[in-house]
Amino acid sequence: VTFDSSPSPQATSSRDELQTLVRNQLELLLSQQNLEGAKALLVPVHSADIAAVIEGLPEPMQAIAFRLLSKEEAIEVFEYFDTQIQEDLLTEFRRQEFLDIVDQMSPDDRVRLFDELPAKVVSLLLDQLSPEERTATALLLGYEPDTAGRIMTPEYISLKADTTVAEAIDLIRRQARGAETIYTLYVTARDRRLVGTLSLRDLVVARPEQRISEIMTENVVSVQTDTDQEEVARIIQRYDFLAVPVVDHENRLVGIVTVDDILDIVEQETTEDIYTLGGLEAGDDDYFKSSLFTVARRRVVWLLILLITNTGTSAAIRSQEDLLEQVVALAAFIPLLIDTGGNVGAQSSTVVIRGLNTDDAALANPKRIVFREAIAGIILGLMLGVVVTLWAYILQGNLGVALSVGISLFAVSLLASFAGSALPFLFKSFKLDPALMSAPFITTIVDVLGVLIYLWVARLILGL
Amino acid sequence: VTFDSSPSPQATSSRDELQTLVRNQLELLLSQQNLEGAKALLVPVHSADIAAVIEGLPEPMQAIAFRLLSKEEAIEVFEYFDTQIQEDLLTEFRRQEFLDIVDQMSPDDRVRLFDELPAKVVSLLLDQLSPEERTATALLLGYEPDTAGRIMTPEYISLKADTTVAEAIDLIRRQARGAETIYTLYVTARDRRLVGTLSLRDLVVARPEQRISEIMTENVVSVQTDTDQEEVARIIQRYDFLAVPVVDHENRLVGIVTVDDILDIVEQETTEDIYTLGGLEAGDDDYFKSSLFTVARRRVVWLLILLITNTGTSAAIRSQEDLLEQVVALAAFIPLLIDTGGNVGAQSSTVVIRGLNTDDAALANPKRIVFREAIAGIILGLMLGVVVTLWAYILQGNLGVALSVGISLFAVSLLASFAGSALPFLFKSFKLDPALMSAPFITTIVDVLGVLIYLWVARLILGL
Repeated sequence: VTFDSSPSPQATSSRDELQTLVRNQLELLLSQQNLEGAKALLVPVHSADIAAVIEGLPEPMQAIAFRLLSKEEAIEVFEYFDTQIQEDLLTEFRRQEFLDIVDQMSPDDRVRLFDELPAKVVSLLLDQLSPEERTATALLLGYEPDTAGRIMTPEYISLKADTTVAEAIDLIRRQARGAETIYTLYVTARDRRLVGTLSLRDLVVARPEQRISEIMTENVVSVQTDTDQEEVARIIQRYDFLAVPVVDHENRLVGIVTVDDILDIVEQETTEDIYTLGGLEAGDDDYFKSSLFTVARRRVVWLLILLITNTGTSAAIRSQEDLLEQVVALAAFIPLLIDTGGNVGAQSSTVVIRGLNTDDAALANPKRIVFREAIAGIILGLMLGVVVTLWAYILQGNLGVALSVGISLFAVSLLASFAGSALPFLFKSFKLDPALMSAPFITTIVDVLGVLIYLWVARLILGL
Repeated sequence: VTFDSSPSPQATSSRDELQTLVRNQLELLLSQQNLEGAKALLVPVHSADIAAVIEGLPEPMQAIAFRLLSKEEAIEVFEYFDTQIQEDLLTEFRRQEFLDIVDQMSPDDRVRLFDELPAKVVSLLLDQLSPEERTATALLLGYEPDTAGRIMTPEYISLKADTTVAEAIDLIRRQARGAETIYTLYVTARDRRLVGTLSLRDLVVARPEQRISEIMTENVVSVQTDTDQEEVARIIQRYDFLAVPVVDHENRLVGIVTVDDILDIVEQETTEDIYTLGGLEAGDDDYFKSSLFTVARRRVVWLLILLITNTGTSAAIRSQEDLLEQVVALAAFIPLLIDTGGNVGAQSSTVVIRGLNTDDAALANPKRIVFREAIAGIILGLMLGVVVTLWAYILQGNLGVALSVGISLFAVSLLASFAGSALPFLFKSFKLDPALMSAPFITTIVDVLGVLIYLWVARLILGL
């Protein structure tokens, strides 16, 4: 199979086509050293597209292409890059050239970049930032990773309760350029305590002489600096917010988190969830850019745990060696039993773990869910048991063996769906990550008990 | 284990605590028939929280609690409900009572509800809507599910290019209540073609006498009515938009999709991706509310496919029955081989499938990724091969068997990581869903080839 001959998997929208077109053209122009042509090519293109195009270029060309941009554009494009590319470009540039760009980034994006850089480089850069930006960044860096404090931006607009609507609009007009959003506004008391919130929409429809206190909402939904970023995402999603205010333990407003950052966080958190379900340890960096040694190290853990599981399975099989010696045909169905049990368990645990990760209200009653899953396991087990008994009989012609396979498959289905649904709740209640913990235990239960049940049933039926 | 004795898995934030508190209090008051007390309890609570509280009540109480709300509040709360609960409540209410609520919903939310209702009920409701709302809803219902046309709202604000900033602000003030968002504004020509876009922020900082044409962006990123909703989500995420305009094939503006709807779509699409990876057929409805028969039907497909796979594996084992009869110990390690191969394959396919689903730029070069994964498989295979050889030797004391297990595990790791990374690309290039197609093929390759390699190697090493 040659992958290049098939259409690129990304070429699904006109936007992707545009990016591909620009990238190919840019690569051509750059390889011909036609820098003026390349510059002209990028002028009408949206900064987000330019970022995507540059990300798609071969690495040596990325820095060259980036240098083509005007300073203003470079700042915008830079913020759209993945942190990994930002880091790569940083090493390509002389520090001064680059410092202006870092100085212009919004504090939350800058912190995300700093998280990836070596501590020495960060402190060098911090020293050279303008004092105002330095304070903002150092503040954010003080919070734990993956908390609201770390992802918030201090560039919000705050109003006083006794301001009039007309004054507020005037103030917003003056502060609009520096603020992350002007669409949600925060009302603070003299001691910076958050006392209310209102939207620009409320302001626009109000009469100019009204006071902010008359139109603001006093019942503010806020998060604290140490709230987990996943919880922040859930609140923004739940309330359809454009931004959520972040307060410290004295309820003083210290920043806001905006919805555009939440989309990135949701994607990142989901990737972590999916990786964990897939038996991969999730790291903070991009999997595809990690060294192969790191990749292997992150995967080998779960594989070594399987060894422990399989010590049990192996012992179970060896304890029945005399039976297998007499009826070697039994061995032919062990893979079926293990594969099916593993999959039934994965099906049950997938719905429960996903439900727990999305705070699904249906999971408020674990007993009911486990009961439902066990019944589903029984139904599945009955269907599969009958089919498999027939199938094994046709394959092998030995009714005793066929019945043993069918009956034990029924038992394994029930076991797997019960374990698959109950274990995630159990681990969650012990504050352990269900996605991480469930798979090894389900595998152990299904493999060891499955094989034992199978061989015991066979011994009984075959009378050996 | 009693699940009730442990803290509820949801009780992780103060918001959840508040909701739990209100729910328990409300349940108590309702069971005491104290409706006035219940009403008073809900007054200061945010609509989104009331919705969550009602969703958590026992079903018979949900409708009673909902009736406590003032009409205005009921409309707001109703929009926050899951579609499933909206549907349940609808059947509890006499139609007239309910119709006012449906009439006040925004068209995109209403369409999402109508999607779940029986066609007869939908046409009855449509007839009774106000003419304006009926047109908007019927229009949206005409588009394919999961497209931009279906999730958009026609309630946007459009301006003309020759309007002044002052006139525009005045117009926005008048239309603010009816529009889904006033923060992104669209500029259309006389024939409704989309010619530009600007934000309320641009408007607020502009001079009152400037024309819209001077401050608008002409290079508009838009989607078409038939663009897939996943693609819409990606564009909003990529460009950090609050809303994206939807145009028809003549580039006429017909609606907008806002970022708050995107968060729900991302969650729904992610659940589908995760379900597919977990071997579950994803449906449009809530898994936990589907009938057990539906649940079993959706799961049994993938389990029956496993039967076909296992016909191969079973045949492979039976073809070597003479070998197994002589060295029954070999059977004890088949589960290890299958489990490990399956997991290595799942690890590789998880990163590739997740990358494809999120349009990761790193996947632009499939050959490189497959090569990388194959090398990772070799590294893993070497590590595991050595460990497993020792482990099998300690367990069994037969060096020949131990070496066969180790060597074949190395081969299986390489095979699995190659297949796990290459197959998703292959299926994607044939426009098939990689998440759906990859697992059965990886299982087949790992199980059948793995067992064959294992027994061949054993035959060679043991000289049988």
